[in-house]
Amino acid sequence: MLSKEHISEWLKSLQDDICKQLIDVDGNAEFTEDLWERPEGGGGRSRALEGKHIEKGGVNWSAVHGPMPATITKGLGIEPCDFYATGVSIVLHPQNPFVPIIHMNVRYFETNTGLWWFGGGIDVTPHYLNLKEAHFIHSTLKEACDGFDPAYYPKFKTWADDYFYLKHRKETRGIGGIFYDRLGGEGEKSKEELFDFMKTIGNTFCKIYLPLLKNNKERKFTEDEKEWQYLRRSRYVEFNLVWDRGTKFGLDTDGRTESILMSMPPMAIWKYNYAPEPGSPEMEMQDYLKKGIDFINLEI
Amino acid sequence: MLSKEHISEWLKSLQDDICKQLIDVDGNAEFTEDLWERPEGGGGRSRALEGKHIEKGGVNWSAVHGPMPATITKGLGIEPCDFYATGVSIVLHPQNPFVPIIHMNVRYFETNTGLWWFGGGIDVTPHYLNLKEAHFIHSTLKEACDGFDPAYYPKFKTWADDYFYLKHRKETRGIGGIFYDRLGGEGEKSKEELFDFMKTIGNTFCKIYLPLLKNNKERKFTEDEKEWQYLRRSRYVEFNLVWDRGTKFGLDTDGRTESILMSMPPMAIWKYNYAPEPGSPEMEMQDYLKKGIDFINLEI
Repeated sequence: MLSKEHISEWLKSLQDDICKQLIDVDGNAEFTEDLWERPEGGGGRSRALEGKHIEKGGVNWSAVHGPMPATITKGLGIEPCDFYATGVSIVLHPQNPFVPIIHMNVRYFETNTGLWWFGGGIDVTPHYLNLKEAHFIHSTLKEACDGFDPAYYPKFKTWADDYFYLKHRKETRGIGGIFYDRLGGEGEKSKEELFDFMKTIGNTFCKIYLPLLKNNKERKFTEDEKEWQYLRRSRYVEFNLVWDRGTKFGLDTDGRTESILMSMPPMAIWKYNYAPEPGSPEMEMQDYLKKGIDFINLEI
Repeated sequence: MLSKEHISEWLKSLQDDICKQLIDVDGNAEFTEDLWERPEGGGGRSRALEGKHIEKGGVNWSAVHGPMPATITKGLGIEPCDFYATGVSIVLHPQNPFVPIIHMNVRYFETNTGLWWFGGGIDVTPHYLNLKEAHFIHSTLKEACDGFDPAYYPKFKTWADDYFYLKHRKETRGIGGIFYDRLGGEGEKSKEELFDFMKTIGNTFCKIYLPLLKNNKERKFTEDEKEWQYLRRSRYVEFNLVWDRGTKFGLDTDGRTESILMSMPPMAIWKYNYAPEPGSPEMEMQDYLKKGIDFINLEI
């Protein structure tokens, strides 16, 4: 029988593996590691970095447990119980505006009353549109999903479009990816199979991000392009602080603030009523911040 | 009988007056005015500025009406009705880190079922502690309140401490000020008297901010001091996007995004797990981000 401890240990090794690969590519990255404990039970291993090519980022692992907060049991419509949650979360803000921001999360959750599920996803937020890369990102995610269920990619792609959406801006956070939650239970695949799926998604992170980083990290950029990156980052801040349920929940329930807010960019700019020039590469990016774009079959 | 239109017109003139005074002091401020309409009824006059001493800010007036959103009628426990809401909102982010950020809001609300109330407040967020100025700010607010009710200042000061609080950081947004809401109704002062109170608070804004701006706008500052300002601004962003009910409500109910987010700073910085040096002026500021400090009777 697959135990929560086994899943959590694997996630820890995933964190190690990703950190190692990022250090190799960045050339100058060093992680600051913080081990922390949660008064109610469990804790985490947060790793923050400021590198040469990764301007700011975090690769965090945690495994927390204890009595389930009343707000959640109510929300789920279940009886009071104890929970266990373990996962790896990553957000990387690159130095170069031609490298996208990336986010990954893979997590496992269970209660002592027999409920359990997996959740996660990978999504990408470019500052400049690159349709070849968008095709590559989505094809790689589709391939990862198709090995398990051909219904996964279309479903989880739409879920990401809907989830990573700034309602107040009427725009998506980026070009999306996949997002899934509460995967498991009656009529679903076995826990073992879904754990394999978690592993596959976890291992897809570097497959996607390393090429994006390698291919673009040395590209020349202007001050204006860097400014556009700062402006786009402010939208990233807005999404995470206003709409992201995970962030909201963490801050609301006394989670470890610095680990939750590792998703914040190093620097961001707000300008009143700013819009890019029509026909500019910035406007081209803006125009693609929409739900429902099929980046796999788009004619380039 | 005091009409909502009369209150709204006065608020408009307050906006004009404050803008004029800010232009005079800044020396190089120019307001970008946007007139906007709300599909469901009413609209606003948003004025944004980027000046020499005021790096970014907004002085917004609005008067909106229509059917009350169901989320609010439910929250208030009242029957569906039409509402009318008018107010002036200000946030100013100064160039010089020795000038504080200031926020003011005065608003009037009524329903077609006979409910009405006033709300508002002024609060100040310095980047560096200046106890003399903190004393001046709070004394001026107390004086404004005392002319109406000696119970107002203590009550509204505590309300501000509780409202402008970053629960996830365990710190207040700044050194507070006053905050009040739902002022009016049975057992309360008359609408005329409370309108006078609104006027007094509205007119207190320049009395407080102009000296802070004038006295500090030319002070020399280092790059490190500017960086600290950027770091403090990220906390301002966090408060407004995570905890501020007005912002949340506006973004949730399809308010005018650019007017709501005029409170965002021009530029902000996040650093993982940052803490100022013990004994530094930055740490001195941080140490005063607490509820319940009596800035009027503090020994300086």
